[in-house]
Amino acid sequence: QFATLRQELLREVTDLKLPKLVEEYMAKMIDYNVPGGKLTRGVTVVKFLEALRQSQGKTVSEEDLAQAQLLGWCVELLQAFFLVADDVMDDSITRRGHPCWFRVDGIGLKAVNDASILYTCIFLILRKHFRKHPSYLSLIELFNEVCFKTQMGQLMDLESLPDGKLDLDRFTNELYHSIVVFKTAFYSFYLPVALAMHLAGYTDQAALKDASSVCEQIGEYFQIQDDYLDCYGDEATIGKIGTDIEDAKCGWLVVTALQHVSPAQRQVLQVSYGKKDAVHVAAVKQVYNELDLTAKFHAFEEESFSRITGSISKVSTMPQTPLTWLLGKIYKRDK
Amino acid sequence: QFATLRQELLREVTDLKLPKLVEEYMAKMIDYNVPGGKLTRGVTVVKFLEALRQSQGKTVSEEDLAQAQLLGWCVELLQAFFLVADDVMDDSITRRGHPCWFRVDGIGLKAVNDASILYTCIFLILRKHFRKHPSYLSLIELFNEVCFKTQMGQLMDLESLPDGKLDLDRFTNELYHSIVVFKTAFYSFYLPVALAMHLAGYTDQAALKDASSVCEQIGEYFQIQDDYLDCYGDEATIGKIGTDIEDAKCGWLVVTALQHVSPAQRQVLQVSYGKKDAVHVAAVKQVYNELDLTAKFHAFEEESFSRITGSISKVSTMPQTPLTWLLGKIYKRDK
Ligand SMILES: [Mg+2]
Ligand SMILES: [Mg+2]
Ligand SMILES: [Mg+2]
Ligand SMILES: [Mg+2]
Ligand SMILES: [Mg+2]
Ligand SMILES: [Mg+2]
Repeated sequence: QFATLRQELLREVTDLKLPKLVEEYMAKMIDYNVPGGKLTRGVTVVKFLEALRQSQGKTVSEEDLAQAQLLGWCVELLQAFFLVADDVMDDSITRRGHPCWFRVDGIGLKAVNDASILYTCIFLILRKHFRKHPSYLSLIELFNEVCFKTQMGQLMDLESLPDGKLDLDRFTNELYHSIVVFKTAFYSFYLPVALAMHLAGYTDQAALKDASSVCEQIGEYFQIQDDYLDCYGDEATIGKIGTDIEDAKCGWLVVTALQHVSPAQRQVLQVSYGKKDAVHVAAVKQVYNELDLTAKFHAFEEESFSRITGSISKVSTMPQTPLTWLLGKIYKRDK
Repeated sequence: QFATLRQELLREVTDLKLPKLVEEYMAKMIDYNVPGGKLTRGVTVVKFLEALRQSQGKTVSEEDLAQAQLLGWCVELLQAFFLVADDVMDDSITRRGHPCWFRVDGIGLKAVNDASILYTCIFLILRKHFRKHPSYLSLIELFNEVCFKTQMGQLMDLESLPDGKLDLDRFTNELYHSIVVFKTAFYSFYLPVALAMHLAGYTDQAALKDASSVCEQIGEYFQIQDDYLDCYGDEATIGKIGTDIEDAKCGWLVVTALQHVSPAQRQVLQVSYGKKDAVHVAAVKQVYNELDLTAKFHAFEEESFSRITGSISKVSTMPQTPLTWLLGKIYKRDK
């Protein structure tokens, strides 16, 4: 399936009659950045459509499956766009176990153009395969809407980072909530869900709004787990070594800690948060442990689960079971 | 008119109920990057629509004017997206007489996210003002198509630059032609023309294809003038100091020179092209003078004018006079 998508994108280049070097570059760039992730977002389109069809007493047709897979790859293209650009902005070292694309020999800041090419590719695919689909325009608008929201999330994330000097006052619950919902929830949860809904015929605004509201909550819960696991997860299980403390990230742990610290503990965070060496990192973790953030996280986890379950139970514009399945997929995950 | 557009974009942010810092950042980012250029591309939408309406025996209505101005600003947003990203990739110093956006204090590589935000803003404006327009979908597709072509041009431009070592073999006519048409002609000429055509009701594929073909030629001619003026133009008139030789650009002068050089002259170019110091730059200019590139340029200019005039005279799918006006606007320009 990826092979087809890849061929079609390269075909778009061939059709423009450009020098051979362009097609070669595009092939290399797509192969390096689009497959190779966990593909959870792309797979969610297919799985959510299956759940929706089941609620309708139907099974997924071959056409359904093919379209859901294509849209799943479009979500992966969007993700690739965000990741390539994010790694440039964060000056990151590795991604998915390989050097970041901009660190590959001969690439450098060409990655900035490549990132936006990956975004434009989404609309080439939509045009090729969905031009006659009744939701074609809605699909385009959906990608643009989700892209804008994610860019706003990225903007807030970048603005929350200390510019030279650490400013703990910026780490408010309000900013944290906004970053998480905008930077992660919309493209990771709402987008795959809304795409599947368009394929299954749930296209009215009320249904999409209900889905968006539930997905915001699921996405927030997911990111809070991510932040928790960054510090307390098992490295072998999650497959990476957390560096949120070193990177001075506006994460759930530090934001929650700041709501409960004594003046002395706050002083420790002020001195040690965002420093690279092990002594400072240990000092921050010590404060987290003193405040028993693990207990607070588990309490939050239970509270989230019942709150989201409650929200889902009130949905009447679309079937509830697919949303329940989505929540169940991440509840109490350890990786 | 810009004030309205600016307000509407900030309104999109307010509607998302984001922290105040986002709106402030967006205002600053838009004000720095969107107005302040020569606005020729944006103005072309309005002027071309006027010329089309005149050919129809009509005048431009107020609604016409308002829509053309809005689409003109969308072209300027697209341009801002390209320029902000291009300056990052080229590590440039100034733009429009000010430091490049990424060099502004506190911005840095956040400019990568900002560039793509400017692109997404186009679709927010289209959605707000053209949702009911019969060409709404075509306008979206047009921006996506032109964006993709420009990105391909940028890709070729970046690939033509020597990666450490100068490779004159890359400076072929074919690559030069592709870079120029894709990187400049589509968004600078075809896009404003096609937007005006949509407003005037010239929406069939044959008309757009004819316009595209003429605009490709006009855009190529325009860029060749730009390359010529970079070396031979009057600095006071063109308002900047050319650095194409120093930057090892794949420009019309070097490409043309390479087609006429003796082995000894080629050796001079091999040694001196792309070097920053005045002695090497003078050596390159000396070769250009020996080959009398000025005469070759003027001959090319005459040949282009009559070739493009010939192409325009064969167009039957839309009025010819607006295209003739567009060509006349740049013929023998000295700035
Ligand atoms: Mg990052
Ligand atoms: Mg980041
Ligand atoms: Mg994380
Ligand atoms: Mg540049
Ligand atoms: Mg450049
Ligand atoms: Mg130039």
